[in-house]
Amino acid sequence: MKTIKVTTGRPYDVRIAPGLLLQVGPMAREIAPSTQKAAIITDRNVEPLYLEPVFSSLEGAGFETINYSIPPGEASKRGESYLALLGWLAEQKLTRTDLIIALGGGVVGDLAGFAAATYLRGVRYIQLPTSLLAMVDSSVGGKTAIDLPAGKNLAGAFYQPALVLCDTNALSTLPEEVFRDGTAEVIKYGMLCSPTLLEELRGDGLRTQSEGIITQCISIKRDIVCEDEFDTGLRMLLNFGHTIGHGVEKLSGYAISHGLAVAIGMAIDTRSAVKNKLCPPDCLTALEELLALYGLPDKTEFLPTQLYGAALSDKKRAGNEITFVTPRKLGHCELISMPMSEMLDWIEAGVSL
Amino acid sequence: MKTIKVTTGRPYDVRIAPGLLLQVGPMAREIAPSTQKAAIITDRNVEPLYLEPVFSSLEGAGFETINYSIPPGEASKRGESYLALLGWLAEQKLTRTDLIIALGGGVVGDLAGFAAATYLRGVRYIQLPTSLLAMVDSSVGGKTAIDLPAGKNLAGAFYQPALVLCDTNALSTLPEEVFRDGTAEVIKYGMLCSPTLLEELRGDGLRTQSEGIITQCISIKRDIVCEDEFDTGLRMLLNFGHTIGHGVEKLSGYAISHGLAVAIGMAIDTRSAVKNKLCPPDCLTALEELLALYGLPDKTEFLPTQLYGAALSDKKRAGNEITFVTPRKLGHCELISMPMSEMLDWIEAGVSL
Repeated sequence: MKTIKVTTGRPYDVRIAPGLLLQVGPMAREIAPSTQKAAIITDRNVEPLYLEPVFSSLEGAGFETINYSIPPGEASKRGESYLALLGWLAEQKLTRTDLIIALGGGVVGDLAGFAAATYLRGVRYIQLPTSLLAMVDSSVGGKTAIDLPAGKNLAGAFYQPALVLCDTNALSTLPEEVFRDGTAEVIKYGMLCSPTLLEELRGDGLRTQSEGIITQCISIKRDIVCEDEFDTGLRMLLNFGHTIGHGVEKLSGYAISHGLAVAIGMAIDTRSAVKNKLCPPDCLTALEELLALYGLPDKTEFLPTQLYGAALSDKKRAGNEITFVTPRKLGHCELISMPMSEMLDWIEAGVSL
Repeated sequence: MKTIKVTTGRPYDVRIAPGLLLQVGPMAREIAPSTQKAAIITDRNVEPLYLEPVFSSLEGAGFETINYSIPPGEASKRGESYLALLGWLAEQKLTRTDLIIALGGGVVGDLAGFAAATYLRGVRYIQLPTSLLAMVDSSVGGKTAIDLPAGKNLAGAFYQPALVLCDTNALSTLPEEVFRDGTAEVIKYGMLCSPTLLEELRGDGLRTQSEGIITQCISIKRDIVCEDEFDTGLRMLLNFGHTIGHGVEKLSGYAISHGLAVAIGMAIDTRSAVKNKLCPPDCLTALEELLALYGLPDKTEFLPTQLYGAALSDKKRAGNEITFVTPRKLGHCELISMPMSEMLDWIEAGVSL
């Protein structure tokens, strides 16, 4: 078992190993010695696979368990779903000393995390990510969110979990397209700061060495989050490909999944960076090869003006400036700020090369 | 002008003086030197009285101003109102460096504060309380909230404002029943820890010396909040009368206002404390006299079993224990914990004396 210690305001452990879902009971007891009730939030795809063993492990450790399952997919991150979940927690009379457990992918983690951050002004929660994307990205770092009609993740809170358990056995039950969705975020970490990781990804490392690769990704994220918990500087690096990516997701009505959209966003940003002479062409070649290897897209049908329109609602916009992530060499990205007025040119350069 | 410095995680000033609403522009500039846009959230009672001068002061200081007005009353603290406000902020493309300003009473402050805490995971906000209750209680200390169908303030965040300006001139435009509503919280501070304040309240101090009395109340709250920002101990003192009070509000469908309900809650708790020999009878006499002097109720028609049922959803419940505030002598309260199973007896004792 690998353990990564995240030393944010409230520190916590991320543990990575096969079989962890069967050990959640005793591990939850370590952080919640006198808690009575655990509310497990999951979705209807994950429920038949893992709810029973998680319940059983928790009950074995003396927790009373209750469950709330949402429909799978981004639509469950709407405000109305959030209010319904809060309403259920209150009906169940969950108290401040009880525990919320998010069992599932990024949608479940973001929604349950935001509910945990705000129900009674905050109760403890545990992340049990079952998708690759949730393991390497959304379950770690305390960003919780819901979507608004104007865009993705536009409301939420910084609220760290009390524990994250990544059971790598869960990856084997993922549908191919859900697994693929996570690979985009793994490639992102390589592009951000690890030429070694990019090298490993050229082999078949992600399937055969998942524990090691997931651990590398989470370590990178941990280092960045501990430097900048509240996303006022360095942490924006983690948004490589996300400004345009969020636009693609939104314009598609969330038919294009997060990972695929981020792949497209990274490709557009890297093309524009090459065209603007911010990075050498080998960055782009390496990225395009990796995206192709993992079956990820690097183009979109949406127009630059549409992508620009969507970016106007981006959280990383501050007044009339936007902060952007751009590759500077292979395995190294940096933050740049640009006036919103130049952003359309940036997108056009990235779409047309 | 009186200034109280609140040294929470993010420190800020509370200023108290007549005429402050006309100075909000330059004072907001001090804390937001390069901000472009200010979104003023108010209600339709306050809008015709104060929106124009506040706009004018902000525009004079170079802010672009926008406004969102909600219907007055507790119904605007429902989840649906919160989502509508978030949707509006996103439509207006408010960015992370912009400012939210809450202009109004407790409902406006709690709702706008929670929106500020969660829109884009947090933007700065200023409280401009216009009611006595908002000045002495809800605008200071960073508790933001919305109501759920199961009860009041059941979701929210701890999120401190960047500045609070209490314009005591605003008190003169309050309808008598809104002013009266605030007096219950003022009496609460006296009962909690200030025999001197109780003495001043026996005269006509609240009308003639409002700046001084409001400053005393906020100082007491500041001292408690700085000891326990996240409400895990001492801060629960501020909930004297609130467990039963919230029950009364909820059972009345919010027809009984917060201050009146807190008055009833304090009276029931004090009667029960006397009956349980936790405090001498002069506490109760003094409280009843003050409540009568300010036209506040000390009884309710609701049954003890109804009040007990409502308390089961109280935030101060932890598992099967509830933390309670009880007077121990005149001008001094303490926290006690009791099993939920004893609470019905406690309420019955307080209702029947």
